Amino acid sequence: MGAIGTAVLLEYLLDERAEREDLEVVVLTSGAKMRESEAKLAEKLKEFDPDLVLVVSPNASLPGPKEAREILKGKPVIVVSDAPAKKVKDELEREGFGYILVTADSMIGARREFLDPTEMALYNSYVINVLANTGALRLVQEEIDRVIGEIKEGRTPELPRIVVTAKKAVEAGRFSNPYAKAKAMASYFIAEKVAEITVKGCFVEKDPQNYIPLVCSAHEMMRTASKLAEEAREIEKSNDTVFRNPHARDGRILSKTKLMEKPS
Amino acid sequence: MGAIGTAVLLEYLLDERAEREDLEVVVLTSGAKMRESEAKLAEKLKEFDPDLVLVVSPNASLPGPKEAREILKGKPVIVVSDAPAKKVKDELEREGFGYILVTADSMIGARREFLDPTEMALYNSYVINVLANTGALRLVQEEIDRVIGEIKEGRTPELPRIVVTAKKAVEAGRFSNPYAKAKAMASYFIAEKVAEITVKGCFVEKDPQNYIPLVCSAHEMMRTASKLAEEAREIEKSNDTVFRNPHARDGRILSKTKLMEKPS
Amino acid sequence: MGAIGTAVLLEYLLDERAEREDLEVVVLTSGAKMRESEAKLAEKLKEFDPDLVLVVSPNASLPGPKEAREILKGKPVIVVSDAPAKKVKDELEREGFGYILVTADSMIGARREFLDPTEMALYNSYVINVLANTGALRLVQEEIDRVIGEIKEGRTPELPRIVVTAKKAVEAGRFSNPYAKAKAMASYFIAEKVAEITVKGCFVEKDPQNYIPLVCSAHEMMRTASKLAEEAREIEKSNDTVFRNPHARDGRILSKTKLMEKPS
Amino acid sequence: MGAIGTAVLLEYLLDERAEREDLEVVVLTSGAKMRESEAKLAEKLKEFDPDLVLVVSPNASLPGPKEAREILKGKPVIVVSDAPAKKVKDELEREGFGYILVTADSMIGARREFLDPTEMALYNSYVINVLANTGALRLVQEEIDRVIGEIKEGRTPELPRIVVTAKKAVEAGRFSNPYAKAKAMASYFIAEKVAEITVKGCFVEKDPQNYIPLVCSAHEMMRTASKLAEEAREIEKSNDTVFRNPHARDGRILSKTKLMEKPS
Amino acid sequence: MGAIGTAVLLEYLLDERAEREDLEVVVLTSGAKMRESEAKLAEKLKEFDPDLVLVVSPNASLPGPKEAREILKGKPVIVVSDAPAKKVKDELEREGFGYILVTADSMIGARREFLDPTEMALYNSYVINVLANTGALRLVQEEIDRVIGEIKEGRTPELPRIVVTAKKAVEAGRFSNPYAKAKAMASYFIAEKVAEITVKGCFVEKDPQNYIPLVCSAHEMMRTASKLAEEAREIEKSNDTVFRNPHARDGRILSKTKLMEKPS
Amino acid sequence: MGAIGTAVLLEYLLDERAEREDLEVVVLTSGAKMRESEAKLAEKLKEFDPDLVLVVSPNASLPGPKEAREILKGKPVIVVSDAPAKKVKDELEREGFGYILVTADSMIGARREFLDPTEMALYNSYVINVLANTGALRLVQEEIDRVIGEIKEGRTPELPRIVVTAKKAVEAGRFSNPYAKAKAMASYFIAEKVAEITVKGCFVEKDPQNYIPLVCSAHEMMRTASKLAEEAREIEKSNDTVFRNPHARDGRILSKTKLMEKPS
Repeated sequence: MGAIGTAVLLEYLLDERAEREDLEVVVLTSGAKMRESEAKLAEKLKEFDPDLVLVVSPNASLPGPKEAREILKGKPVIVVSDAPAKKVKDELEREGFGYILVTADSMIGARREFLDPTEMALYNSYVINVLANTGALRLVQEEIDRVIGEIKEGRTPELPRIVVTAKKAVEAGRFSNPYAKAKAMASYFIAEKVAEITVKGCFVEKDPQNYIPLVCSAHEMMRTASKLAEEAREIEKSNDTVFRNPHARDGRILSKTKLMEKPS
Repeated sequence: MGAIGTAVLLEYLLDERAEREDLEVVVLTSGAKMRESEAKLAEKLKEFDPDLVLVVSPNASLPGPKEAREILKGKPVIVVSDAPAKKVKDELEREGFGYILVTADSMIGARREFLDPTEMALYNSYVINVLANTGALRLVQEEIDRVIGEIKEGRTPELPRIVVTAKKAVEAGRFSNPYAKAKAMASYFIAEKVAEITVKGCFVEKDPQNYIPLVCSAHEMMRTASKLAEEAREIEKSNDTVFRNPHARDGRILSKTKLMEKPS
Repeated sequence: MGAIGTAVLLEYLLDERAEREDLEVVVLTSGAKMRESEAKLAEKLKEFDPDLVLVVSPNASLPGPKEAREILKGKPVIVVSDAPAKKVKDELEREGFGYILVTADSMIGARREFLDPTEMALYNSYVINVLANTGALRLVQEEIDRVIGEIKEGRTPELPRIVVTAKKAVEAGRFSNPYAKAKAMASYFIAEKVAEITVKGCFVEKDPQNYIPLVCSAHEMMRTASKLAEEAREIEKSNDTVFRNPHARDGRILSKTKLMEKPS
Repeated sequence: MGAIGTAVLLEYLLDERAEREDLEVVVLTSGAKMRESEAKLAEKLKEFDPDLVLVVSPNASLPGPKEAREILKGKPVIVVSDAPAKKVKDELEREGFGYILVTADSMIGARREFLDPTEMALYNSYVINVLANTGALRLVQEEIDRVIGEIKEGRTPELPRIVVTAKKAVEAGRFSNPYAKAKAMASYFIAEKVAEITVKGCFVEKDPQNYIPLVCSAHEMMRTASKLAEEAREIEKSNDTVFRNPHARDGRILSKTKLMEKPS
Repeated sequence: MGAIGTAVLLEYLLDERAEREDLEVVVLTSGAKMRESEAKLAEKLKEFDPDLVLVVSPNASLPGPKEAREILKGKPVIVVSDAPAKKVKDELEREGFGYILVTADSMIGARREFLDPTEMALYNSYVINVLANTGALRLVQEEIDRVIGEIKEGRTPELPRIVVTAKKAVEAGRFSNPYAKAKAMASYFIAEKVAEITVKGCFVEKDPQNYIPLVCSAHEMMRTASKLAEEAREIEKSNDTVFRNPHARDGRILSKTKLMEKPS
Repeated sequence: MGAIGTAVLLEYLLDERAEREDLEVVVLTSGAKMRESEAKLAEKLKEFDPDLVLVVSPNASLPGPKEAREILKGKPVIVVSDAPAKKVKDELEREGFGYILVTADSMIGARREFLDPTEMALYNSYVINVLANTGALRLVQEEIDRVIGEIKEGRTPELPRIVVTAKKAVEAGRFSNPYAKAKAMASYFIAEKVAEITVKGCFVEKDPQNYIPLVCSAHEMMRTASKLAEEAREIEKSNDTVFRNPHARDGRILSKTKLMEKPS
């Protein structure tokens, strides 16, 4: 429901080469919208009787996502959302939901004078780039993989309750070079800041003369964050220390560091 | 079914600010896999009784996508796929399907020594960037929007039958500056070439000492294509000639060129 | 007293080619420190019987800067400071002081493991670059020039009371291209955000394993902000629309836009 | 007196985190101008009875700086200046003054059609960047620190007599990677060359059609030198070999190389 | 005869510092043209009675180059050419000629609307850059050096029969870092692809509205390939692992890796 | 005789698409060497009875090139050389030779520890890039074309006597944007400065510890000059104002500015 950068590749994060034999994924989305009525998708999803449900949306404190997860209660549910969802963190925990809130997955500059499909896609390319390069996506992946593993073992999974900060993201990034890590953190901080500007541009400023420059500058920030995140990875490449953790065919997470070596 | 860059944002291309009132989107995907059995998703989809179906997958000539579209026959179906699907172009036309084949949406370097979830996400960020910046995504959007428009008017839609070449992509890109256009074309050509290398790296070479450098160089090519595509857009920005075509609330496609002006 | 980026070139901002005949500048500084006792410099300064006093320091809410301006009361005093001084904005106004608070002139990452003289100089090169490219320094210059002009005319000057936001900075930047302006704003926003990280790195985190990455990432942010600010100016260069406002020999501010034309 | 890049941060070079307890700094400057009459500042300075005096100005062979240092004779005086001061090197030595001449601290392009306060600040950001990244500023710092140390020990200090060449600068830069060192040298050579162009642009060419391109190209050279100097440091970052020599609280110079380690 | 990038520096590849005493080189070229009649240059060359002849031209399958090498038969002849010459590979071998075909040495975008002498020179600067950085030129050099060595020893030389692929080029490039190697390969692949576009632009498309963008995009591709090839070398520089193999005065090939060490 | 950047493409400058019908070019070179004995090539060349002779070499004041041109006296001879040849400017004029001295075509860093064939080729790629982008090569081309034109008309040609300075180069570069022009000039100045460093590195410094960093930094300078020269052309591209002057089939120089227009 609704677009966030973390969402667009989520199903692939868990099976990046389409060869896991232990995993069956079904994704149901309602496109960009997140009207309450669309929570009925949740009903549809229930028919699949899933072992684990990820409810992914921006601002999980809104009624639509809320209704969706209520319907799915009983199943292990992990809410994947962005910074505004921090408001319902306690509620989520109380209700037994897990959550992973990616604070750098900032709201897009959704103003018609600025945001057409092309700009939307570009923004997402920058966001995905930042989240992947800094390690944020790996943290998401590892947590969900851990839960899947626990379910496979027949255990009641310990659902993650994580706000993905810069620090946690770069820990998952497993940087060897401290400057690469600092650049990744810087990238993440900039990406987080974007939301502050887009919120102002979308909800506070009413005059196009004011809000167009704001949303445009917010996307420039994300673009720049992406370039900085690339710098981080390029450093790791130059030292042949890029950490990789591909899935094995049976779903285990392997790992490796030198490019030419075999993961294990 | 299966991952291609064009797919990951497709639902948002048609409603980039989540405010269209004329459109209800349901997406059903099977994650990275495209096993035949998963074509049963198509059955599920049929229950929604959609006005238009997009079947999106890499290599639409494989049995899975084929079965899926067979099931959905009777509905207007547009196959969105990549270069290898060119093999079944005639068949698709004969069977009454529309198609949009994005040749620069090249296969990822799917080798376990190289492709972990992070690398997968990065690659997609580059692909999306190339497709958005060059105009390819706009072409996809405009064709689908046209079909939706025809359906809304109660007409039998003329389904698109398009192989998205560099030339067609940059026409949709509406570049004002001829060098920006040439850079976008160059980016597209490089992105197309990637598939040649990944296919060799994934299916021909058997020795990791040979295929790791190949798939790694293929991703470097896509990364470079993305940088070049950005150069194209930066030129248009510097001239304040970035073309934008946002949707109106009622689904019409508006357009504008100068950043501070209103779309119409 | 104490270092802020705005300070290091302030005297030259008003006489960039050292040829104004209407201006005599004396600068008295106490190096990096801002201990209260050093406010006695203020006494020394008084001996020069200046027409206008600029009290420049980070965090003008601290006792040192406060004492200094108290001593200088009676003269027209403009406090030039950074974001934390916003706390004493009302007090400054009440006491009859002018102020210009440059919010992007963020605190340096003052941790011994990280900040040596070379890193300090680099950081300042980035800050100056951001402040100059975005227009913030021009705003400072224009306000002080205006006050000087009023004093020269024998009028009681209207002291500036300005918090330099991104919006005000780029207005002074006089960008012709809206994307250049958006990039400049983005640069300014990033530079503002730096203080949040350095404050945490210098005053909150106690463990070097935590604060070193923080201060290092903060400087990476300023470095990146500087590159983005350069992008803005390069666009204006490419259009030959760089606004320039040099001083005439008699102190008047001239202006021009095309490089090869004469200022007037 | 007068602006040179080395000057703008000189007081902070010696106390970069404002915590040295062994040092009291007073700076008196006359803004951009260096008229002879302003040498009276030297008189004022004498009242502070300093242990060490740094007389910083462009072209120390001019009457203003000369008069200033004559007045201060008797105190240990170090003249900090630029390449043109090489003419009075022998005279300075004869008169008992120390000197540090930073040849890359090239004259600015001081033509009204080109140099406004913003351009002036940008140029200084590039100069400071080059001097810091190449090691030139560290050489200045270390020499002055050495003299301060000798004074603190009650010894008659050995005043430095140094022309800072590319070679000496990069030695102080303590580069680990030989290509980083070569890039730093290249940067320094380009920065040195700038003066040749600005002198021609400011004093030889009389026609704006000729001198505007000259001074503009000179600043482009310094901008480029700065980018190259950054390349040098980025290499050291990528190897985690950035040398740092922060001051201890008591004024001793510590040193370290790996980012996460403690200086000692 | 005719221009290819490999050719322009070929004579210098074998004696890069002009100090070999075992080598006498004579070059006879006919400028850009390769008309059959010009094969008479071959006659002229014969008068020099050379020990080894290199016949360098684009597309060695054309009549001009063919006639030239026929005339020179009897001497050891190595044909140095580009990808289209692959058509006559077997013929060359049958006739006893050696060959080195550099597939990335792609045809220039030879359309009058686009290609003036300046564009021609730029394109060659990119091609040479790619060929040098990837290792392709080193492979050419080493093969010819080997043959010269065999001739010097009085042996019948084994003539090279090599199609220079990306893989062979980067092997000669002796990269230490696997990502540098992958970038170099990527660069080579892009450079190879250029020919496909220029051939279409020069021989297939007849309408300037179509062929101008094509040839222009082809040059953008080569420019981008060159930037990527530079990235590869910069990584090796950052690790101080740039392989160098200078000639000794007596023609032997020495080698070294660390910049400051002596070749041996 | 001997390598200079201007030389390597000289024959193609005059016939960039190999289709001029009014021109027959023969090139005779002696590889990298320029020993006196090799001046006998000049004798060989005479046999071709050329209408115009270009004697191209570094440092035309040396005996080899001198002897060569003496032999060719009687023919119209244009000496194409570099900065050191300025010493014999008057002599050349007196003896009736024309000359074009390209001062930015700086000597390579010819030290065995540094210069292998690959480094040599890279350096030339940078030099050619600088000379082409700044306009220097166009000036060479236009002068020679003018002389050829005069010869074709049966007139005694006025031989060029030109020292190619930054100013003259960029005039031939026909830049529309003044900042592009300034960047090109800056690039040219840096390229000129290279020779100062290489001469010191090759002939003055004897210790490898000193001369290796020097020659290495000199090549970094040329590399940087090339990047700056590219910036200049990219600006012209962004404005669609790249000047082109291709040859017509009959040898006339056409010209055009907008990419999509026809030259005339």
